Amino acid sequence: MKRYIDSKVLFFIVALLSSCLSYANDGYRLWMRYDRITDENLLSEYRNMISQVVVEGTSETMMAVREEIESGLSGLLDTDIDFADKPLPGKVLIVSTPRNSKFIESLHFDDKLKELGIEGFYITKIKTEKFNAIIITANTDIGVLYGTFHLLQILQTHQPLEDIDRVSVPKIQHRLLNHWDNLDRKVERGYAGFSLWQWHTLPDYHDPRYKDYARANASIGINGTVLTNVNANAQILTPEYLEKVAALADIFRPYGLKVYLTARFSAPIEIGGLETADPLNEEVIDWWNRKADEIYTYIPDFGGFLVKANSEGQPGPQNYNRTHADGANLLARAVKPHRGIVMWRAFVYSNEEPEDRAKQAYNEFKPLDGKFEDNVLIQVKNGAIDFQPREPFHPLFGAMIETPTMMEFQVTQEYLGQGIHLTYLAPLYTECLDADTYAKGEGSYVWKVIDGELYENKLTGMAGVSNIGDDRNWCGHPIAQSNWFTLGRLAWDPLQTSENMAEEWIRMTYSNDQSIIDPMMQIMMMSREAGVNYRTPLGLHHQMAWHHHYGPGPWIKDKPRADWTSAYYNRADKEGLGFDRTKSGSDAVSQYFPPLNEIYGNIETCPEEFLLWFHHVPWDYKMKSGRTLWEELCYKYYLGTDQVKEMQKTWDSLEGKIDPESFKHVQSLLKIQVRDAIEWRNACLLYFQTFSNMPIPAEYEQPDKPLEYYMNIERKYLPGS
Amino acid sequence: MKRYIDSKVLFFIVALLSSCLSYANDGYRLWMRYDRITDENLLSEYRNMISQVVVEGTSETMMAVREEIESGLSGLLDTDIDFADKPLPGKVLIVSTPRNSKFIESLHFDDKLKELGIEGFYITKIKTEKFNAIIITANTDIGVLYGTFHLLQILQTHQPLEDIDRVSVPKIQHRLLNHWDNLDRKVERGYAGFSLWQWHTLPDYHDPRYKDYARANASIGINGTVLTNVNANAQILTPEYLEKVAALADIFRPYGLKVYLTARFSAPIEIGGLETADPLNEEVIDWWNRKADEIYTYIPDFGGFLVKANSEGQPGPQNYNRTHADGANLLARAVKPHRGIVMWRAFVYSNEEPEDRAKQAYNEFKPLDGKFEDNVLIQVKNGAIDFQPREPFHPLFGAMIETPTMMEFQVTQEYLGQGIHLTYLAPLYTECLDADTYAKGEGSYVWKVIDGELYENKLTGMAGVSNIGDDRNWCGHPIAQSNWFTLGRLAWDPLQTSENMAEEWIRMTYSNDQSIIDPMMQIMMMSREAGVNYRTPLGLHHQMAWHHHYGPGPWIKDKPRADWTSAYYNRADKEGLGFDRTKSGSDAVSQYFPPLNEIYGNIETCPEEFLLWFHHVPWDYKMKSGRTLWEELCYKYYLGTDQVKEMQKTWDSLEGKIDPESFKHVQSLLKIQVRDAIEWRNACLLYFQTFSNMPIPAEYEQPDKPLEYYMNIERKYLPGS
Repeated sequence: MKRYIDSKVLFFIVALLSSCLSYANDGYRLWMRYDRITDENLLSEYRNMISQVVVEGTSETMMAVREEIESGLSGLLDTDIDFADKPLPGKVLIVSTPRNSKFIESLHFDDKLKELGIEGFYITKIKTEKFNAIIITANTDIGVLYGTFHLLQILQTHQPLEDIDRVSVPKIQHRLLNHWDNLDRKVERGYAGFSLWQWHTLPDYHDPRYKDYARANASIGINGTVLTNVNANAQILTPEYLEKVAALADIFRPYGLKVYLTARFSAPIEIGGLETADPLNEEVIDWWNRKADEIYTYIPDFGGFLVKANSEGQPGPQNYNRTHADGANLLARAVKPHRGIVMWRAFVYSNEEPEDRAKQAYNEFKPLDGKFEDNVLIQVKNGAIDFQPREPFHPLFGAMIETPTMMEFQVTQEYLGQGIHLTYLAPLYTECLDADTYAKGEGSYVWKVIDGELYENKLTGMAGVSNIGDDRNWCGHPIAQSNWFTLGRLAWDPLQTSENMAEEWIRMTYSNDQSIIDPMMQIMMMSREAGVNYRTPLGLHHQMAWHHHYGPGPWIKDKPRADWTSAYYNRADKEGLGFDRTKSGSDAVSQYFPPLNEIYGNIETCPEEFLLWFHHVPWDYKMKSGRTLWEELCYKYYLGTDQVKEMQKTWDSLEGKIDPESFKHVQSLLKIQVRDAIEWRNACLLYFQTFSNMPIPAEYEQPDKPLEYYMNIERKYLPGS
Repeated sequence: MKRYIDSKVLFFIVALLSSCLSYANDGYRLWMRYDRITDENLLSEYRNMISQVVVEGTSETMMAVREEIESGLSGLLDTDIDFADKPLPGKVLIVSTPRNSKFIESLHFDDKLKELGIEGFYITKIKTEKFNAIIITANTDIGVLYGTFHLLQILQTHQPLEDIDRVSVPKIQHRLLNHWDNLDRKVERGYAGFSLWQWHTLPDYHDPRYKDYARANASIGINGTVLTNVNANAQILTPEYLEKVAALADIFRPYGLKVYLTARFSAPIEIGGLETADPLNEEVIDWWNRKADEIYTYIPDFGGFLVKANSEGQPGPQNYNRTHADGANLLARAVKPHRGIVMWRAFVYSNEEPEDRAKQAYNEFKPLDGKFEDNVLIQVKNGAIDFQPREPFHPLFGAMIETPTMMEFQVTQEYLGQGIHLTYLAPLYTECLDADTYAKGEGSYVWKVIDGELYENKLTGMAGVSNIGDDRNWCGHPIAQSNWFTLGRLAWDPLQTSENMAEEWIRMTYSNDQSIIDPMMQIMMMSREAGVNYRTPLGLHHQMAWHHHYGPGPWIKDKPRADWTSAYYNRADKEGLGFDRTKSGSDAVSQYFPPLNEIYGNIETCPEEFLLWFHHVPWDYKMKSGRTLWEELCYKYYLGTDQVKEMQKTWDSLEGKIDPESFKHVQSLLKIQVRDAIEWRNACLLYFQTFSNMPIPAEYEQPDKPLEYYMNIERKYLPGS
């Protein structure tokens, strides 16, 4: 049927549509942009293959599936979606579990279904006399939801549907975000505004964002969220707040997103009125057991606790001369009857401990291996210091044999330019996951530790410290959304490559146009290495300013805690630079399995990217390039700033190709980033030069300000600090 | 011309349009919603009258005019806007000044233009042989912009255009918002998220919100904004921050919005390195003069300073035994060469001063009348205490004869339910503006003081303490946008009525449908009185909890400062209730002109709404209703909660009539408000009952919790406190 339409109306409609679309470029939709497919051939192919949709099932999750298909397909296919109650002959999309759909049951996918577990999905195409159908199925409704997002993503990224036959099962069981959100809505290390959780109006008001947050997580397979800061506040465990948490849990549940909380170890004292929080005290044990029971009355599928204990001033079992195992097991036993888990962080170090900070977590936890309840995971940061631009993988990976270790990546860019610098983090994540621990010989990759393969762990997990806030675009920097995306993708499958994930994210978020994909890919893929080069090349680490973690401060020393100063880590002196962690030094190398201990421990075989992490290296040491250490240092710092300038130039080439709002936003931030990168370079080189006494090679543009200038830069009121 | 369009495409377009529209219901557009006019007759009438648009002029402001007309008309008229370079015969809209348009010049509107001043506008219709034109004109481009918004608002509110002939000139010169925004983006008394000003990324990144903020202000005639908190931070006056402020000023300038800053009186010490901030010290004078010169190099049209001095711990001239006039004149002389002004706040009181806090501002400032430079305004809160739900007008209005006083209203709802309670503030504003000061006999209304008529002041001003934050909908509570709107309207014309402004706002923001307007009007118009009734009826004031200004705390006493406690204000005892401010008490009544001093001072003639403000009244005092004071108090508190329940019921009737997002948001908040109102009522009555020893009349639902319960309610992590 055709209808007449006035050309002016048509014009207006087009104008309004485009204004709607440009309105939508505030980044709110993240990678779930369901705009009309721009490739007309593909569009008609897709339309042809999906002329009708059947979603069978009535659970809240299946309602979410239907809603997502409706908005997704009507947007992408630019057509009204024809939903049918049951499979009718024709070209149809059928979405359900065998339990909810007799039709799917009749297809006897039993072998496939066996592979899928409780979260995997199967997408296939069947052709019979009557049907030419695409099927999304799973053992559970959540599996179906994951499959639904996957199908939409296939369309978003212009992949062929013909002959589709795809099984996807998450390799890691607990795929979590950690929000370091305080109850006053400040986010520790948050650079995208303030906390999403509006505690003040919960449980009554449900901001529509809560649901969109759950959708976004489900779309990338994240199945758990820790709502509160690891520097924890016991208030969250009071009935007043549990009621609020329950309201969020109710909104998240249909999307398979479980809620977890951080447990402040001293909560029995602070909100329980006890005089101790000793994990072996009967009253304390009883208090936690009752508290756990209470939590589960509010949130029947509560995920469990994340705990930071005896670290950076947080209370913990050691206050009572008990071990981390005693502490973790106390909580683990409380949640075990309800199938909850405890994620106990290995990020512990003490200023009363003269030992190299990089060694302390291993020293603390390795002896406790096997002493934890079976619902405890040890949550280990990717490196042994603290989310530096580059660190060798944490020696606890592979070292814990009987107790599972889970990965803690940082998605928020605490040390990587915060809300300002463009930094695609997947290369950092995959570098760690792909590292070989040699724990059981060659091929004992970190990802094999994490996904449980190496030691056949029953419990597995990966967490990302969230970069999400209440900024309209969720993550502050427009490109920072890619890091949230990547965290989800890697938690589902740690073997994803940075390139593939970047391309997928660009296609979904910006465009399938190769002339947009290529430059964006180029920028993203070089961004992390650039960030290492202009901040802490060659294994340097922890060289940031004192009051914040944004700008440079290699000169920081003589503070109450040595291990919070830059001098502690750079060890710059007249002879050279770097932290001797060989046998002649702190011997941190011995925490690694052979042959890594030898490789890292030998200045000749140590990868140069970790050289100053493990060695104190003479200024005139000859590097592989033939340059001296000093020259190489200069080379790297200048390379870093050149790389950012190149990113800037490449970004500028996108003008007019992507929406002006994102374009200008990133352009403005890159302008700051170039300035900052030069500041990092000049500040660090001028400072290290006071030890090397060597000139910055003449071929480089010389710093135009003295060291003093950089030392006097003061930054106030930085977000997230 | 007609084109074919596929019905499915049409369906989809309609679906997408409606999804766009519903997407737009996040409140971001404020009252500037330019959706298609729903009345088809009116639509064709408007279209017919505006078939072409001519905007003459090339300034940035005229570019803004063109942009606003384009988005406004294309949305409202649902048609492509045909812009012409110069007036062509036909039905046309012509927008310009006589200076920029020979055509408008030729119309010889000279008499009208004389009335308009620098900000007024004239909209009229002319009919000649060739032309049937609507004209928007003014002496300045800014006047044209104001006229443009006015025309769009005529269309938004479905007013006839035929025979339009409208002159509008602002009655008040300085129409300002005061942002109590800190540099760390916390907003003091902010309940709509955090500060709009992202200092960290300024001056480089220009959030598109900055421009929309300027648009919104221009659309209601606000022409100045104080960016920073009155509890000031001297950092804002450093070059680093001035560069950021200048970037905002550049964005705001085309919209006629001037930037002002708060000046911390001790800035010469804190950022100037001086040892004193004594306003008579030569070095200090020189420092401020140079600082002002410096500011104007960054912002050539910088508006001036707002100052809170010697109040609540802020530094000021009294630290050096100088007067407020000495302090204000110091700054006034510094900005005078650049045509800047100083707004010096009268909100001063001292805990070292035993005098009734309500009297202190008058006592301080009245003797200084006439001692200020001619570019100083004294900024006076509407009442003498602090933005209470109801206060008598401030006795300084009318009392200052030679020094102009400007009005400070609070738009953010510090004492009126913050981000949660629905409170339309126009009735509070107009009650104050319409009060008769009797300063020059009957008819000496506050608005005549404010608009300069009474004492022929050259300088006039009205400021509103902003309720704007980075919440997507700007003001937190969806209805709170109306308070920003109203502040602008009243600053332009203080004789606007609450009813008219409410109706206008509803029509522009929600709908012209009477079945939506009526219930919304009803709710808004009763909301403030309800808030008075359930919090502080009959002249009670300052009865809120200690750590925040949200919930009740009539029992607060014995704190370091008496005048920060509730007991200081309620004076409840066995005999009665209320603060004796008659001659037998603090004699605050004598600060009012006759006959008001007599009227307020006599318990028989004092308006009952101010009874307990001015009198200590026996519990069994017979009120006009025939009830005793205690019974009347009960009646009012119960009336207040009943009113909120009625608001809730009325709101529920809007379900399905307005967008679901706003509907649910307000519905959720009303649920909290009902609960809170009952808490206020029960807490206050149970507490006062401990003095009156009288029963709550049996016809009322009795409190189901004891007083102790209410006294133990703790609220933590409230926004804005």
